[in-house]
Amino acid sequence: MNLSIFAGSSNPMLAEGMAAALGISLGERVLERYPDGELHVEIMESVRGRDVFLIQPTAPPVEEHLIELLLLADACHRAGASRLTAVVPYFGYARQDRRVSGRQPVGARVVADLLGTSAVERVVAVDLHSPAVEAALPVPLEHLSAVPLLAEAAREPGRDDRVVVAPDLGATKLAEQYATLLNLPVAIVHKTRLGGDSVIVRRITGQVRDRVPIVVDDIIGTGGTIEAAVDAVLQAGGRPDVTIVATHALLMGPALDRLIRLPLRRLIVTDSVQLPDVLPVAHEVVSLAPLLATTIARLHSGESLEDLIARR
Amino acid sequence: MNLSIFAGSSNPMLAEGMAAALGISLGERVLERYPDGELHVEIMESVRGRDVFLIQPTAPPVEEHLIELLLLADACHRAGASRLTAVVPYFGYARQDRRVSGRQPVGARVVADLLGTSAVERVVAVDLHSPAVEAALPVPLEHLSAVPLLAEAAREPGRDDRVVVAPDLGATKLAEQYATLLNLPVAIVHKTRLGGDSVIVRRITGQVRDRVPIVVDDIIGTGGTIEAAVDAVLQAGGRPDVTIVATHALLMGPALDRLIRLPLRRLIVTDSVQLPDVLPVAHEVVSLAPLLATTIARLHSGESLEDLIARR
Amino acid sequence: MNLSIFAGSSNPMLAEGMAAALGISLGERVLERYPDGELHVEIMESVRGRDVFLIQPTAPPVEEHLIELLLLADACHRAGASRLTAVVPYFGYARQDRRVSGRQPVGARVVADLLGTSAVERVVAVDLHSPAVEAALPVPLEHLSAVPLLAEAAREPGRDDRVVVAPDLGATKLAEQYATLLNLPVAIVHKTRLGGDSVIVRRITGQVRDRVPIVVDDIIGTGGTIEAAVDAVLQAGGRPDVTIVATHALLMGPALDRLIRLPLRRLIVTDSVQLPDVLPVAHEVVSLAPLLATTIARLHSGESLEDLIARR
Amino acid sequence: MNLSIFAGSSNPMLAEGMAAALGISLGERVLERYPDGELHVEIMESVRGRDVFLIQPTAPPVEEHLIELLLLADACHRAGASRLTAVVPYFGYARQDRRVSGRQPVGARVVADLLGTSAVERVVAVDLHSPAVEAALPVPLEHLSAVPLLAEAAREPGRDDRVVVAPDLGATKLAEQYATLLNLPVAIVHKTRLGGDSVIVRRITGQVRDRVPIVVDDIIGTGGTIEAAVDAVLQAGGRPDVTIVATHALLMGPALDRLIRLPLRRLIVTDSVQLPDVLPVAHEVVSLAPLLATTIARLHSGESLEDLIARR
Amino acid sequence: MNLSIFAGSSNPMLAEGMAAALGISLGERVLERYPDGELHVEIMESVRGRDVFLIQPTAPPVEEHLIELLLLADACHRAGASRLTAVVPYFGYARQDRRVSGRQPVGARVVADLLGTSAVERVVAVDLHSPAVEAALPVPLEHLSAVPLLAEAAREPGRDDRVVVAPDLGATKLAEQYATLLNLPVAIVHKTRLGGDSVIVRRITGQVRDRVPIVVDDIIGTGGTIEAAVDAVLQAGGRPDVTIVATHALLMGPALDRLIRLPLRRLIVTDSVQLPDVLPVAHEVVSLAPLLATTIARLHSGESLEDLIARR
Amino acid sequence: MNLSIFAGSSNPMLAEGMAAALGISLGERVLERYPDGELHVEIMESVRGRDVFLIQPTAPPVEEHLIELLLLADACHRAGASRLTAVVPYFGYARQDRRVSGRQPVGARVVADLLGTSAVERVVAVDLHSPAVEAALPVPLEHLSAVPLLAEAAREPGRDDRVVVAPDLGATKLAEQYATLLNLPVAIVHKTRLGGDSVIVRRITGQVRDRVPIVVDDIIGTGGTIEAAVDAVLQAGGRPDVTIVATHALLMGPALDRLIRLPLRRLIVTDSVQLPDVLPVAHEVVSLAPLLATTIARLHSGESLEDLIARR
Repeated sequence: MNLSIFAGSSNPMLAEGMAAALGISLGERVLERYPDGELHVEIMESVRGRDVFLIQPTAPPVEEHLIELLLLADACHRAGASRLTAVVPYFGYARQDRRVSGRQPVGARVVADLLGTSAVERVVAVDLHSPAVEAALPVPLEHLSAVPLLAEAAREPGRDDRVVVAPDLGATKLAEQYATLLNLPVAIVHKTRLGGDSVIVRRITGQVRDRVPIVVDDIIGTGGTIEAAVDAVLQAGGRPDVTIVATHALLMGPALDRLIRLPLRRLIVTDSVQLPDVLPVAHEVVSLAPLLATTIARLHSGESLEDLIARR
Repeated sequence: MNLSIFAGSSNPMLAEGMAAALGISLGERVLERYPDGELHVEIMESVRGRDVFLIQPTAPPVEEHLIELLLLADACHRAGASRLTAVVPYFGYARQDRRVSGRQPVGARVVADLLGTSAVERVVAVDLHSPAVEAALPVPLEHLSAVPLLAEAAREPGRDDRVVVAPDLGATKLAEQYATLLNLPVAIVHKTRLGGDSVIVRRITGQVRDRVPIVVDDIIGTGGTIEAAVDAVLQAGGRPDVTIVATHALLMGPALDRLIRLPLRRLIVTDSVQLPDVLPVAHEVVSLAPLLATTIARLHSGESLEDLIARR
Repeated sequence: MNLSIFAGSSNPMLAEGMAAALGISLGERVLERYPDGELHVEIMESVRGRDVFLIQPTAPPVEEHLIELLLLADACHRAGASRLTAVVPYFGYARQDRRVSGRQPVGARVVADLLGTSAVERVVAVDLHSPAVEAALPVPLEHLSAVPLLAEAAREPGRDDRVVVAPDLGATKLAEQYATLLNLPVAIVHKTRLGGDSVIVRRITGQVRDRVPIVVDDIIGTGGTIEAAVDAVLQAGGRPDVTIVATHALLMGPALDRLIRLPLRRLIVTDSVQLPDVLPVAHEVVSLAPLLATTIARLHSGESLEDLIARR
Repeated sequence: MNLSIFAGSSNPMLAEGMAAALGISLGERVLERYPDGELHVEIMESVRGRDVFLIQPTAPPVEEHLIELLLLADACHRAGASRLTAVVPYFGYARQDRRVSGRQPVGARVVADLLGTSAVERVVAVDLHSPAVEAALPVPLEHLSAVPLLAEAAREPGRDDRVVVAPDLGATKLAEQYATLLNLPVAIVHKTRLGGDSVIVRRITGQVRDRVPIVVDDIIGTGGTIEAAVDAVLQAGGRPDVTIVATHALLMGPALDRLIRLPLRRLIVTDSVQLPDVLPVAHEVVSLAPLLATTIARLHSGESLEDLIARR
Repeated sequence: MNLSIFAGSSNPMLAEGMAAALGISLGERVLERYPDGELHVEIMESVRGRDVFLIQPTAPPVEEHLIELLLLADACHRAGASRLTAVVPYFGYARQDRRVSGRQPVGARVVADLLGTSAVERVVAVDLHSPAVEAALPVPLEHLSAVPLLAEAAREPGRDDRVVVAPDLGATKLAEQYATLLNLPVAIVHKTRLGGDSVIVRRITGQVRDRVPIVVDDIIGTGGTIEAAVDAVLQAGGRPDVTIVATHALLMGPALDRLIRLPLRRLIVTDSVQLPDVLPVAHEVVSLAPLLATTIARLHSGESLEDLIARR
Repeated sequence: MNLSIFAGSSNPMLAEGMAAALGISLGERVLERYPDGELHVEIMESVRGRDVFLIQPTAPPVEEHLIELLLLADACHRAGASRLTAVVPYFGYARQDRRVSGRQPVGARVVADLLGTSAVERVVAVDLHSPAVEAALPVPLEHLSAVPLLAEAAREPGRDDRVVVAPDLGATKLAEQYATLLNLPVAIVHKTRLGGDSVIVRRITGQVRDRVPIVVDDIIGTGGTIEAAVDAVLQAGGRPDVTIVATHALLMGPALDRLIRLPLRRLIVTDSVQLPDVLPVAHEVVSLAPLLATTIARLHSGESLEDLIARR
């Protein structure tokens, strides 16, 4: 069973990097639109009897990338692929893992069931917003973590005055992972109601005064949470020399404007989502290609992934 | 079991028309995007125990409209709808009902299987490009025909010099339906290979000379097939006073430019797909709202649809 | 479609209370063991054409209660029940909603899939440990909250010196719900790593000094988390006049010993799990029977549950 | 994974030919009836771990052949076959791919779903009446074409006076395939309504006068369509020296009587359906055994089928 | 939800009797063959919103009757039937409920899974050869018994010299049911190996000498078992005045010849399988129509079937 | 694909024996309880790409052992096992293969469907109480027989005065298997109703007077059936020197007391169910480990099991 890798249209650069790390070429495929606006998907080389990996983060436009992935999977299955694995470094709709009103969909389950109709036997994802999406998926999920890679990039030896900041309660465990890897303290920004007059105060647990903050999160969406956290840290005496670290740089809507406004020294993200060619903020990209290539190599050859799996 | 109707974002005007014909209001729903680019779908009124119809033609952007429909269905199902019917007047991906190379997907089946994951129990569609999509769907399909309505609109009493033109072989049966309803002759445009030197000639079966052509098709996509057919009919002596009749006016890319160029007297389409507010060509719209409202009323009350079903 | 309610063996007293609230009798059923140790389940009255609710929290012994529920559902389905709803006030295995190592099961999904083999069409649960279990279940879930009821029971008008305490970060949102309902401030107990020498300190966000603590959680398992939190609050100057509020009183192993040891004034729990006949600690039980009875009545008659659904 | 081939009772001669072409023996199996009239199916050699192909065109009696195929598949699956492929050169019920009234079944989907209950992972068929059956099947279909083989058999070098005739519109694409392969012109027989008095005239597109006709179709059922087409071609001046070419020779009811009556020089068919031992018309049989043997060999060894797939 | 009943082609007389007993007419349907040998099934009246019962014992030709049932079910489902129940008084393939060699199919499961693809929600059967087929079916089964009816017919008051004979061990429980109802003793015919020289002797438990035998079985297939049992009873001194009672009179192959040969006074069977118009042996037919009509009436109106269910 | 074997908690000694017979070690796994009473299952070595066998008879506590098996299967599947086989020497709930009243579950199907949710592809069981459970299972079953092994253990050359006794009618076929293997006669204990006054007499077919009885059964549950049979045989003149042979020694409740009371010379059972460390009756245990090890070895290497399969 030989190895084949095909890239969807969502992040071909990442896929190229993975193929290069594996020492193979990406499979040829057509990804176009028919005149009636439907996706025209076609595999241009034999996959019969092969171990096929499809690389497609479901970043916006999520629906298009998702259906394209399903069409690719259908094409490979019909063409005789022996095994299909979807590599979805950014997994869209992971946030919708429950109803918050009684008349919403559970988007994560809807997406999971769509994957379940395909011949995909296994999914690889990185730093899911909700790790419980694993329970929604009908096939096994390998949930990888970019945190060790990002922590390594954020490391600055000899700088003991730094603090890892969780921008909200949901990021606490993530912040603790970074802190352990970097041997630094943690601070947590949170809103607290203090009493009967319903005043909400953004408070910080842990010391940030005179410390250099490293704000960590899984996703930078519109940047609102991170902006507010940085403001709070600065007000609390944190040093205006901020590092932001996140796995998925969606950078929706006002995100770039917000980042530009902040006293940012470093912005460290991965290439799970394809970044614009030009970004108006200085940034460092830690490629997931080596991690994902290793994962594929081990899945292909039947080696353990135990040391790569995210612990959440 | 009371009746509720919700419109997706694909064609709210058609849905309004249907609700009006049924004498009820459309259900309130939210259809927005979250900051991270995912669809935010929410039903704003109780559907518990109700007979719910979701109105959503899957016209381009097909993938977005399809996923939105699935999210609406999930929301209604979780909120306790007793029965869910999807009204999809234009059904995208119907063309991909087979592989034409060994390494393509079968898009119609992929889409059918996605619908199969939902709680939708029945689908209503109009003039499917491939009627065999019925066999691909895991739930019953009510396949309606707009042809009687369109034929009625195209009728011009006292004009015996007209001819119904099928723009290619695939439209022959459709042309015969129109011809029967209008009591007119048929002509068929087709490409014929005439011999060893592989010359392809666009030939016409039936008389078009000095006749006023009514060119009929199911879909106007980019308009290429229709344009070529009109050219052939005119070259064969047809009168430059053309009527074009089609169910689904997708009007992709160069379609409008092509239509403008033709000696068009009438362009008759339905509102299965939401048309632009302003169209640079004169046209008549036959609304599907009464037909679809009747269908919903009968499905709701348990009456036969036998006289509404398309015979293909 | 008439209403029938059957109780599994897990919590017949709660079921009795629900039936009384609904003004009907519990259905007769046999729940025994055959000589070979297998469960002998039998329904003793006709359920043909009826709207059947099965009451069975899956508290320990979880596996036995779960299989009993599935056998009850099978018996009712075969006997012709029109609709089956499982009322599972305490939902076991909700904690296992992801793998924390690569070689664990995802217990919540396993349990969800077991329910998916049955004819149960809807599940009702209260205060799930992980709300994302909703995405794991193949059928709709009505996720109710006991928090308003428990908050009401904990209310002590005129006592402004109280503080709602979350015993760990996971309980923060819960604590905020209580605080809003009771118009009290919040404090959060959390462990923080403070720096390179990996010291872990139990810190508290918010003011507890000289305040009377109300420690809130969803489950009291072995009582370890709550005990540690109370200790931390007392060390921080909280008043030794503690109220503990929790939805699910599993009271496993050392739980009672720990509770006895604490300076407890009030212990308020629900009857989601059947409590021992005699408890060696003073406690108040807020019955879920009225809430669950209302839910059943509305599901049965097709009324909205919107105001009962948990917002998490 | 070694190769095993078993023949159902529908066409053992074809299966023998395939096995011979592959240089192996057919697997031993029992296909009998029990005294109570049920099929007794049994595999008489080990298939554990083997790559098994079942050869069974579902020609009449369709239902018996279909169930026999499903029982063979069940026996092989339970006996440990690693992979099961059904080779169904003639695929029955392909015509019923839609309802033509609202109260019919969709027979193709019913049959497809029956196959879907089996462990068959892939189906091989030849010249399906409706290629869209591919979308109805829950497993991948390899749709082969006998047209190149039949065209080769029909080739008569130096005879430029021949014309390929499509006996109805449905056969047009097929006729064009033959014409391209044989470098001959095409003629199409079709019924046309010419005007208000509803006269139906069998007309012919393309030149047939003084030409030797090759009438092509996918199936010869009762022979009615072909007989009418030959009559029309002769009336239009075609030479009474007819060749008929078809993939599937069902030869139901009056078919042989009709063929005998025609001025037939050649009748060329495949052995997709087992022919009677004695046929009262001269005919040539192009065996599908080499094509199907090649397909099996490639599926077994994981080679591409791309050049064998039908383009429709 | 109104009631509709349609008969397959297997036993229209029984269906007529059921409809008469219910005071309604059988639904109109077409059951023919298309020219290509496929079944042409069509419902000729509206079933939308109706409670539909399909009457089709799957007697030989089993495969044809089975597929016809599935096509009827598909037609009714697509046409909007609210609920579908299959009434299969004789259930073919029930004997194949296990493999007796490692390379056989499990025919009962294959058939059960085919039914599982349909929209049939419930099956009604009478005196299954293997009651465990209930566990093979994916939908609930109502397993009725004709034994009380047949026993009533066999009753001859004042005749105390009779004995109920089980023709083999498998019929022992059945014989005991008859004996209880008729207040008669039981005798069991069985083959016993008596020792090392492997002699097989047909022995009888219970007294038959000078008694009038009533031989009971579920099915009369080829009549071999019954013939041998009668022979043994006569040799043991039973009176040559035999009554045979069986639910399902398949009467395959040599059955009639065997029955003619026996000293038969009465042959009592049901009409679960349609009998030939003329039978060369005197016989009494106990119609299942009243029992099945009652069952349908209760299923339709939601009444308990408890007193009709077979206890095996 | 390498071989791995993991033992559930039900019978680790048997699993040890199997591993030893195969010359490998059992895989390491954790089987504990979390503080909240849920099973904590974890595989402690890589199974990626391996052929995994899970050893878990579902003896009492059945529900716990069953869920543990499902959790083990889930863990292995997610961890990348290539193939999963469940070895369930004693298969619980096999007796509940039908309803004996209309309002019972069909427990065997419920359990079978639970297994069907898992990734287990094949089940191995020994001497099922109801062989028809094979039809209830959604995956292939290898049904092995311990009878040849037990018969060998029971063999006493030169003792021609023995008789194999079936303790009830259900054990007749089993007794005949033993008798054939041991070259001994059979006797059958059965209750017979002898006439109108409903007297039930325990009668014996075959000679037991002055013979040494070998009473055989599949399961020893509470021992009631065997005790009554032994009593009947002794009353009929059988010698008080009894051998009891059974595959599954559940030994529930009063079983040991009953066995102690009997004039037992030998008690021969297998280790399908883990026996207490100390048994107050002399007994011989025939280990299934060699048979099961051979089965695993052949399944793993793709050899036929034909000679190991139970014929029932």
